Formats: sequence, structure tokens, C-alpha cells
Amino acid sequence: MSLGDPAGIGPEVLVRALADEQVRGVARWRVLGVGSAMHKAAELVGVEPCWWRVPRGSELLETTRSHDVTLVDYEENGEAIVLPRGPSKRGGELSFRFVEDAIAMARRPADNPLHADGIVTGPISKEAWALAGRGKYPGHTELLATRFGAKRHGMMFVSDHLRVILVTAHIPLMEVQHALTIGRIVDTIDLGAEACRSLGIEHPRIAVCGLNPHAGEGGILGDEDQRLIAPAVELARRSGVDASGPFPADTIFREAMPRAGSGGRPARYDLVVAMYHDQGLIPVKLLFRDEAVNVTVGLGAVRTSPDHGTAFDIVGRGVADPGSMRSAMLLAARMAVSRAARRAAH
Amino acid sequence: MSLGDPAGIGPEVLVRALADEQVRGVARWRVLGVGSAMHKAAELVGVEPCWWRVPRGSELLETTRSHDVTLVDYEENGEAIVLPRGPSKRGGELSFRFVEDAIAMARRPADNPLHADGIVTGPISKEAWALAGRGKYPGHTELLATRFGAKRHGMMFVSDHLRVILVTAHIPLMEVQHALTIGRIVDTIDLGAEACRSLGIEHPRIAVCGLNPHAGEGGILGDEDQRLIAPAVELARRSGVDASGPFPADTIFREAMPRAGSGGRPARYDLVVAMYHDQGLIPVKLLFRDEAVNVTVGLGAVRTSPDHGTAFDIVGRGVADPGSMRSAMLLAARMAVSRAARRAAH
Repeated sequence: MSLGDPAGIGPEVLVRALADEQVRGVARWRVLGVGSAMHKAAELVGVEPCWWRVPRGSELLETTRSHDVTLVDYEENGEAIVLPRGPSKRGGELSFRFVEDAIAMARRPADNPLHADGIVTGPISKEAWALAGRGKYPGHTELLATRFGAKRHGMMFVSDHLRVILVTAHIPLMEVQHALTIGRIVDTIDLGAEACRSLGIEHPRIAVCGLNPHAGEGGILGDEDQRLIAPAVELARRSGVDASGPFPADTIFREAMPRAGSGGRPARYDLVVAMYHDQGLIPVKLLFRDEAVNVTVGLGAVRTSPDHGTAFDIVGRGVADPGSMRSAMLLAARMAVSRAARRAAH
Repeated sequence: MSLGDPAGIGPEVLVRALADEQVRGVARWRVLGVGSAMHKAAELVGVEPCWWRVPRGSELLETTRSHDVTLVDYEENGEAIVLPRGPSKRGGELSFRFVEDAIAMARRPADNPLHADGIVTGPISKEAWALAGRGKYPGHTELLATRFGAKRHGMMFVSDHLRVILVTAHIPLMEVQHALTIGRIVDTIDLGAEACRSLGIEHPRIAVCGLNPHAGEGGILGDEDQRLIAPAVELARRSGVDASGPFPADTIFREAMPRAGSGGRPARYDLVVAMYHDQGLIPVKLLFRDEAVNVTVGLGAVRTSPDHGTAFDIVGRGVADPGSMRSAMLLAARMAVSRAARRAAH
């Protein structure tokens, strides 16, 4: 686990999630972070520290497998790292290094004592990363994809009642026209299908959003829906994936969710493929803000994270909801176990 | 009222809405439509026709003020108009003419017997309008704005718990960059504030969405948020409107809605200004599909419509939900009364 930006709500939500016995029981957690921030957060939310502290680089780390939670502390010489409120260069440097080191652990062979079966990342500030000279990576996903050498990867959001995967993510909206290709859409559909299977859905039904209002209304409101998305859906179908669309984005999410009550029915789709960031995240955050988990698919390693940001504005008030972090940790453990089982079966 | 495309669900939802005594009681309705389609719909949904039929162009129309519901029938010589399933040229021609004639009625002086205090439009097919050579108008709103000579107008969606107004609407998503200007954003904020006041909210609090992911994340993910939207919010504030933003679109809608339950609180905003069609309509249709009303603001006349389309795929099955049409009719009556009261007060 990477702590995220120490000045954000990462420490608060992590400490609260770790206070949950179920979370502590499903895996052995290693937190790459800052000891003083973790202690401050524990005090703030009224939780007893439950971790064993090891200084970064210590050989002790190789022998900590028996601890539920180990904190790998990046504070040197016991001097507390004090960060300004909001995005800072130092916060960017630290949070970037946590992720880099977590990736290195995930890439070690399974029999190495420092190997990690999966990565859960705390929220970082892209502005802080830019201040730290890491602006090349607009977010975790891009950094992870580069380090894992993933040719195809996708950003997916998983909650109990809605799953969404994005074709494009952290780019300016008006750049989507350059990023959207038939190949990229097909890849995302495939990755989403694969991820659904790893979540236990053997034959996922996948709905693909249009890009334009009303999915282009037959070409009157833009041509990408017919020129790029429809052919991609067709290609995916031919390869055996149960994909359909493009559908108008303002109505399809409802179909991909179970309906409760008297007119109730199960969801018609297991996954929605969204063309850009807000198209997919408006529904996810509107309905499942405190429980949705961000999953990076296609890395060859498990990676989840809460779907919220650093929320600098509420830091230190103890009001940050740990629900999404808790779900991210539980899902990472579940996926790691499922991966191991699949490997064993082959 | 314009019936909309006679081959769509317009007749079904209209007939069901008219069966509601409350709806019939709040106004005298004139439906510009097709008699046979209305009768077929009434049979389908098991409702007794409640309208007095007058052939189009008949002088009788001038004397029908005493009827709750008058159907102005565009079928000539009593011959039923039969349309193919789906969008057709004839359906486009008819539905276009209904709207044109409704506009003409709204533009007549208040003392003219054919005057209308407001317009409620049934769903049309943009494809059918294009087939009828009316593709110049991508939707009702653009036609209405042209005919009323409205320099500034906006498309707003009103439900009990969320109000949204769009800066751009029926254009290809990638054209938004050319349509978005500081002036247009300020105009939309103003129009939204005005509409809120006409709905009884004297000092509306208005949240403005960003365009890019995370509202541009400080400029890293696109510059429109800082270059266009932030200055527009500032201008609106200086003119006395309580506007704020730009906010990340994936989190702001939640703030603009009351929260139920134990952590409940009233909404923080009365209105959300969205930059493009799906940004505003994904939340509206996800949460309020069967009750949201589309309101055109800035026309100088009341105009509402249900927020759904022709739904050709479910026509004739009697499953179309009349909730949005019913709400559109009730809201139009309420706004017309409020306008009259304001006029009388000045």
C-alpha cells in the first residue's frame, strides 16, 4: 500500500480502514508511508495504531511477514516530515516514491520476501506530482502502465451495483478525439471482459457508451459513434465478447444497474464502457462515492485504489469516509486470491 | 401542446397524463396532433378519450375555451394517417408542424382566442426532422429560440431534487470547444438564476461544472476551466449572482441534491450549470428519468417538455412512463400562472 500524499486524507482513511478487523484479516498489509502522518491521523480519528513500524530500507522488512500491518516509514532519523496544507513539491516527491517502491515490490518474484501480491494506492495530488517534476504522469494509472510495460491497460470502477471501464481518462476532454481509436475501444472492451471474469462473472454482458449526445443520433450529432465505436463493438462481438452499443450515455447506466422495488429487475449489463473520464465517473461518484473502487486492469498485477482524491479541503477534520479505501483493500485481497487460484489451476 | 412524432410514445404518455384529473384541472389544454394516433393510444392504455376533437383550421377552435382538453386534429378528410414504425419523413413533417403552430399560438396576443400561455412539446425524432428537410434544427430548443428571436436561451432540467442547465446541448461533443465562450457561460448562469426565481427560489445558489476531468486539475488536464469558466463565474458573481466553480463534474451533482437519511442535509446548490449535454443529462436521467422536465428558458414564453425521446422501440406496448409528461404539464401551468402574477405585479 502506498500512503498517497501525506498532506491529503490518505492517512485518515487508511488508518480507519486498518482499524477494521475484516480488512486486517484478509491480507498482510505493508504500508509505504510517513510515520508521523499515520500517528497524527490515528489520534485524529481516535484509533489505536495497529502497525509495526520499520524504517525504510531496513533489513527487518524481510522478516515482517508475520505482522498483519507493517508501516515502512520514509521519515529519516526520526525527524517528522511536516508538509504545508495542499499540494506541495515534497508531498509529490514522497507520494511518487511510495508508488514506485510499491511497484518494485509487486514486480519481485513471488518467492522473494519483499514480493507484494497486489498494490493498493492512497490518493495523490496530480498538482503535487507536477511540482515534484513528475507531471509526465497525470495519475497512478499511467505510471503503473509504464512501469509494468502494459501495452493495453484500463481504468475500471467497481461497486456492488455498477462496473464502469474508461477508454480514455486523464486527458483534456477536447483531446478525446485524438485518443479514441477503434483499436483502443476494442482493447478496453476486452480488458473489461477479462476483469469481469476475474471478478467471477464468466460471461459478462457489456454495454458501450456513445461519445456524442444521443450517441450521435444517427450521425447528425457527430460521427465518432458510427465511425469508431460501432465498428469496435462489432469487432469485439466477432471475437466472442457479448458487447453491444453504442448507447446514449445519458440512459445506459440505468440499464446496467439492478432496479430495486416493485418494478425491480436484475441489471441488464455487467459492465459499461465509457469513452471519457466524466462520462464514466459522474454516475459512479453520484451513486457510489463512498464504496466504489478504482481497479487498473491489464497490468499483470492486482492494483486497486479508493476512487476519491486527496480532498485537501477536509483534511484534519476527521470526516473523510474510509468506505472506498476499505472496499479497495478488500477487493485487492479478493483479486489476489483469485489470481493465485487461477494460476494454480493452470 | 404539440403531440410529438405520432409514431413515438408521445400519444401514449400524453393520453395517460391527460387521464390524470390534477393535470386536467390546472389548465385548458389544446393538443396539436393526430386523432387516430390519440385514439389508438387511448385504447392501448385503456383510457377513455377525454378530448373534444376539432379539425385543424376549423373556426370552432376559437370557441373551445370552455373545454378542458381540445384535440386539434391534423388528419384531413377523416383519413387516418398511418406511419411506419421508427423515424419517417411524414412523422418529421407532422411533428415539426405541430411545434410551429404551437409557437404561433404562443406568440399571439394574450387577448386573442387562439393565444397560448405556454407550450408543452411531445417527443420528436431528430432523424425524422432531418428526413423532412428540417435537419437545420437539431431539436425543439433551437427551433423555439429562432422563432422567438431569443438571443440568449438555455435548456434546463427540473426535477424535485435536482436542477441542471446546459451551456451547450445538441452539438457533437468535440465541437464544444468552439461553442464555449465566457459570454455564453455567463448568459447561461444568468438565465438559470432567472428561471430559479420564476420557480420561487429568490436567491439561487449556482454551482458551475468544469469541462475537463477534475475541472482541469489546475490546468494540467486542459485550460478551458481556468481560461473560460472561472472568469465567467467571476463575472456572474460581480453582477450579483451567487455562482461558484468550476467544480469537478463527477462530484458536484451530489452537492446539489439533498441527502436523505441519518447523514441528511439540504442541497448546497439550487442549480448546476453543465457545459455539455451528457454532463448534465447523465445525472438527471440516472436519478430522475421518469419525473424530470425539460424547460427552455429565455424565450419570453413558457415551454416545457418531458425529458425522454420518442422511444420507438417500446411504442405500442403500453409500458411508456407518463411521469415526465405529467410533470412537464404541471410545471408549465405553474410557470404560466407565476408569469401572469409577476406581470400583474409590475
